[in-house]
Amino acid sequence: MANLNGAASDLRSTFLGVYSVLKSELLNDPAFEWTDGSRQWVERMLDYNVPGGKLNRGLSVIDSYKLLKEGKDLTDNEVFLASALGWCIEWLQAYFLVLDDIMDNSHTRRGQPCWYRVPKVGMIAVNDGIILRNHIPRILKNHFRQKPYYVDLLDLFNEVEFQTAQGQMIDLITTIEGEKDLSKYSLPLHRRIVQYKTAYYSFYLPVACALLMAGENLESHTNLKEVLVNMGIYFQVQDDYLDCFGEPEKIGKIGTDIEDFKCSWLVVKALELCNDEQKKVLFEHYGKENPADVAKIKALYNDINLQSVFTEFESKSYEKITSSIEAHPSKAVQAVLKLFLGKIYKREK
Amino acid sequence: MANLNGAASDLRSTFLGVYSVLKSELLNDPAFEWTDGSRQWVERMLDYNVPGGKLNRGLSVIDSYKLLKEGKDLTDNEVFLASALGWCIEWLQAYFLVLDDIMDNSHTRRGQPCWYRVPKVGMIAVNDGIILRNHIPRILKNHFRQKPYYVDLLDLFNEVEFQTAQGQMIDLITTIEGEKDLSKYSLPLHRRIVQYKTAYYSFYLPVACALLMAGENLESHTNLKEVLVNMGIYFQVQDDYLDCFGEPEKIGKIGTDIEDFKCSWLVVKALELCNDEQKKVLFEHYGKENPADVAKIKALYNDINLQSVFTEFESKSYEKITSSIEAHPSKAVQAVLKLFLGKIYKREK
Repeated sequence: MANLNGAASDLRSTFLGVYSVLKSELLNDPAFEWTDGSRQWVERMLDYNVPGGKLNRGLSVIDSYKLLKEGKDLTDNEVFLASALGWCIEWLQAYFLVLDDIMDNSHTRRGQPCWYRVPKVGMIAVNDGIILRNHIPRILKNHFRQKPYYVDLLDLFNEVEFQTAQGQMIDLITTIEGEKDLSKYSLPLHRRIVQYKTAYYSFYLPVACALLMAGENLESHTNLKEVLVNMGIYFQVQDDYLDCFGEPEKIGKIGTDIEDFKCSWLVVKALELCNDEQKKVLFEHYGKENPADVAKIKALYNDINLQSVFTEFESKSYEKITSSIEAHPSKAVQAVLKLFLGKIYKREK
Repeated sequence: MANLNGAASDLRSTFLGVYSVLKSELLNDPAFEWTDGSRQWVERMLDYNVPGGKLNRGLSVIDSYKLLKEGKDLTDNEVFLASALGWCIEWLQAYFLVLDDIMDNSHTRRGQPCWYRVPKVGMIAVNDGIILRNHIPRILKNHFRQKPYYVDLLDLFNEVEFQTAQGQMIDLITTIEGEKDLSKYSLPLHRRIVQYKTAYYSFYLPVACALLMAGENLESHTNLKEVLVNMGIYFQVQDDYLDCFGEPEKIGKIGTDIEDFKCSWLVVKALELCNDEQKKVLFEHYGKENPADVAKIKALYNDINLQSVFTEFESKSYEKITSSIEAHPSKAVQAVLKLFLGKIYKREK
């Protein structure tokens, strides 16, 4: 176990080393005439926004690629390339988060003020988000231009970014201020938001990157995509659950989905399960800042036993996903998928 | 002349017809599960932001491609493809403008409220900007995936977008509120902002698209890029000039570069030409909202004869650009460049 942790921390430090290389290439990109001021700005912006998360998405490209190679040792170059793709996903995530925080008027992110709230940044953060996004094709061009799968990588990142933006759109337009209307919320809407906004880029994208590097054709892996998307949906349902029932010390934040009138799995399930009287309570108190309103919602969630509804959902999802994994023809792909599922099953953070 | 105008208006309506086709493809993109609400939102957002400009950048792809074909009639398919690339540039422009208006806290654009100021839009406009940007690779994939130059198109749009964002960044960080410091403004800084923020996407990109469609390799056209970038710089200097000295009825807005502390060619030239006493006036009154301050700056511009300095710059630029055009080996390319130059020389709007 010590060994395994050692290997994991080695991988993490290798991965962080690649970040430094990529950053320094970006800060000297010959497609721009740099000034000291602009270089400092971008460096600070990158260090603030890119490497501070859990890095799960990025690291899982390397893990997946290793499993696809079925135990063969990776060359240093393979590790570097898989890491670079992993970082592209972390960059993509940073781009979404910087802009999402502006749209949601958020205060903190990863335990520090949101980038746009840092003094002198403000709305420049919009352009910084764009810069983050633009770094992805720069990284891809620097390291993959000559690969046979280069164009597929570009298409993949473009398609996944598009889907994420579309998911964010339905999330935003169903939550428009002043039109708080619970009757629009339903399980199919929740599934759609979550699938597009989270599942594609968090679950499908890392594996798809590893598959392309391994010379696979993505068209022939539609089953795999489906399993990963289902895992992503399951992951986000956990997120919704933890927002209300998780321990703030473990999840690193105090959930505000109820106050924010979020289309959370919990409220959708509650709408499905409650009687007319309870429905009234939901309509009256959901999406209000006042702690008394929030308490009423939480009490209702307890009354209808949402925690055990979730536990049942969790075990059913696990079973379903496991059996679809085992139906996959490739043992290597099965290993990738089981690794992912193992990482998230019954997580508390 | 009537004939030529007729042809131009035909081209414009053909071009607008292609917009309808592209829009309807995007609104039925199979990579997303549409709802009525999301489809309506995107359609309204597109119609509000994409086709309402002068469409010069988009139309010039078709013009350039025609000239590169040296008079041969274009097939309907060629017109469609050149138009689609033209629309990609218009989409790119819409994406920049939607986000720039948020960053600049602007009020109106093209004679109507900025998109983010439309009721119920607000900060959703940030995601709408991203959606606009994501439409470009969707259009390219729909219509160019099988072309030998597909990957070059993706690289081209990525590189030009990156350069534009970098130009926007130096513009934003040199204008940071609370640090209004005129001593940072200089001709090289102005040139850098303008070259990256405007010239690449407005002048180089349309011609580069036409060249790729015509089967050319962009690597072998570095001279051409330089000429177009110089035209773009000249174009932006005109813009800076018209912001102060143009007729509001013609340019469609009331300039506020002085109030906004913009790194305009005018203030940069003024800093270069004025004596110590005049410099004091600039430092004291530039970048203030008060009309009395603005009037002092305008009076100073008159005192140092900035209008004739501009006129001289204009004719010198024209000469220089013309001679670099005539040095170009290809008559067809010369024709493209002369068309562009002719369109902007001595423009009043």
